Amino acid sequence: MSEYSIALLPGDGIGPEVMEQAVKVLRAIEAAFELKFSLKSFDVGGAAIDNHGKALPEDTLAGCEAADAILFGSIGGPKWDNLPLDERPERAALLKLRSHFDLFSNLRPARIYPGMEHLSPLRADIAASGFDVMVVRELTSGIYFGQPKGIQGEGEEEFAFDTMRYSRREIRRIAKLAFESARLRNKKVTSVDKANVLVCSRLWREVTEEVATDYPDVTLEHIYIDNATMQLLRYPNQFDVMLCSNLFGDIISDECAMITGSMGLLPSASINEQGFGMYEPAGGSAPDIAGMGIANPVAQILSAAMLLRYSLKLTAAADAIEMAVQHALKEGVVTAELLPESQRSEACSTAEVGDYIANKIKEQH
Amino acid sequence: MSEYSIALLPGDGIGPEVMEQAVKVLRAIEAAFELKFSLKSFDVGGAAIDNHGKALPEDTLAGCEAADAILFGSIGGPKWDNLPLDERPERAALLKLRSHFDLFSNLRPARIYPGMEHLSPLRADIAASGFDVMVVRELTSGIYFGQPKGIQGEGEEEFAFDTMRYSRREIRRIAKLAFESARLRNKKVTSVDKANVLVCSRLWREVTEEVATDYPDVTLEHIYIDNATMQLLRYPNQFDVMLCSNLFGDIISDECAMITGSMGLLPSASINEQGFGMYEPAGGSAPDIAGMGIANPVAQILSAAMLLRYSLKLTAAADAIEMAVQHALKEGVVTAELLPESQRSEACSTAEVGDYIANKIKEQH
Ligand SMILES: [Mg+2]
Ligand SMILES: [Mg+2]
Repeated sequence: MSEYSIALLPGDGIGPEVMEQAVKVLRAIEAAFELKFSLKSFDVGGAAIDNHGKALPEDTLAGCEAADAILFGSIGGPKWDNLPLDERPERAALLKLRSHFDLFSNLRPARIYPGMEHLSPLRADIAASGFDVMVVRELTSGIYFGQPKGIQGEGEEEFAFDTMRYSRREIRRIAKLAFESARLRNKKVTSVDKANVLVCSRLWREVTEEVATDYPDVTLEHIYIDNATMQLLRYPNQFDVMLCSNLFGDIISDECAMITGSMGLLPSASINEQGFGMYEPAGGSAPDIAGMGIANPVAQILSAAMLLRYSLKLTAAADAIEMAVQHALKEGVVTAELLPESQRSEACSTAEVGDYIANKIKEQH
Repeated sequence: MSEYSIALLPGDGIGPEVMEQAVKVLRAIEAAFELKFSLKSFDVGGAAIDNHGKALPEDTLAGCEAADAILFGSIGGPKWDNLPLDERPERAALLKLRSHFDLFSNLRPARIYPGMEHLSPLRADIAASGFDVMVVRELTSGIYFGQPKGIQGEGEEEFAFDTMRYSRREIRRIAKLAFESARLRNKKVTSVDKANVLVCSRLWREVTEEVATDYPDVTLEHIYIDNATMQLLRYPNQFDVMLCSNLFGDIISDECAMITGSMGLLPSASINEQGFGMYEPAGGSAPDIAGMGIANPVAQILSAAMLLRYSLKLTAAADAIEMAVQHALKEGVVTAELLPESQRSEACSTAEVGDYIANKIKEQH
């Protein structure tokens, strides 16, 4: 029996209660697919500050290093907002985990699920035409990190400057990941750039074309960032994988999330060159509804599915989770925020949604 | 009687036929407001290449210099696409006019007109909530022009770089224009940046705050570019003037245009520090439908209204044109592309739309 080790970092706010549902689902997968998951839980974020004095304790980091992948909940909340910036949950835990494991990529799937079209801010006929995109964003280079950046000069001529910078190596590894991801989906990569004005984008395009020759089964298209933001509104179903630099991916992934209309359904992944990754909901820790049993666990459960697919290569198990989630959405087994206001009395609790999805997996396998 | 001089540069494709309608409307304004417009027409773009061997002849440039403002049609078409890049209509005429007159700003209004909600790709209830935005984009600096940019290094470590750069002076002049523009509208400026990661954005925010102190009647808000692309989809009516750097404005102005659903209604302006400007439709020269009498003249007519408002300070006259356009749209006096397919037999011609708007102005004044 194959055994896998997953580090659970539930964190703050709604993190622990949605993580509990993901664990239920992973246990159902164990039974259905004759796998063994070793699931160890560690403190992170505000919870770790309260218990150990820092957002990312050594124990937690060691637990992540020993694991095959990290399933992350969410962190932060008003309680820790007054700490010095470098000690706050986000920076001290999330950014440190990303740099420690060299998680250079961010994968953000965004999808309008059947039955959830009403949540999309797009016109009914456009939302009904379908939307199922994977944004693959470079996360550790580009203009957010490029040097030099600073301020020079005096008076009105004083100027600020930032450097956008990409090496062939950096572009190649993220492009490869996009093509690999497209192979698991609809075999199309749309690379987002601004090659008519940016030198970085021209190198981006050149290296992406080189990588494409290793993936003859995948179609490659290029689109300018400004046109991409337009096309997403009018013809969203033309896209499969969208390959983006750091800044452009920051923009496109958020626009795609908004097009679905529900952050509570969206997982995300940060992956390194070895396939090790951290998986987490795209939304926040929602401290305002923590502990009330009404948080949507789907993004956390789909994060577990992504973990199985991308880090553990357990395709059938990942498919089973995603199918079960689709059943839940289609059957209306959902938390309140996914329902039209008139139907909110029929909403399910966090645990009910988790139970339904876990049971659906058991039933079908 | 006040007299104003306007250089008309109709250009290629549908340019001449929609310019003819704008001229009709300006003549109606002359009569209604007891003004005198000296309207002189000059060749530009492909038409100028054919007649004079270059896209921006000396005569045309001299005519623009002698005028109070430029009303521009549209240029380019397949006939001139095989010329060397520097001789093509876009680069040789449009970019040269911008740099010659130091047109550092681009104003792109975008609006969902009453009766035109069905064109928007947004959900019906969101489109019905209203959308009326002025994007004020810096056009001559930022990462498109910042130096250094280039390629260095070898092999896989070879890297490309671009420099985003803004001086206090550059930020101040575009911010001022945004606040001035807000005073002519709903007195709110939303400045779009990425101040959490870009030094340029932090200086942008600082200078914008300084400028705001001179406009106590105008509200200033800041928003991150990624959040802006989301908010525009869900709560588009929260915005009035959106102040953007070159790259962010390139993205936001296109997203806003797409939200309206019709490029054929959208004017634009490029203005310098003296208030001299060039006014033109946001759409292209559409050579495929040129000469057929079916092109939408509204963007050209609204460009004339912007010219009156921004360069000639003729507020009442500009208002009169915009009111007449709204009448036309509301009454369904429109070209075919604005109508649902089932109603296209009721479409008006280019000239009929122009006549209706010109007559409406005469009627009401
Ligand atoms: Mg973002
Ligand atoms: Mg653009």
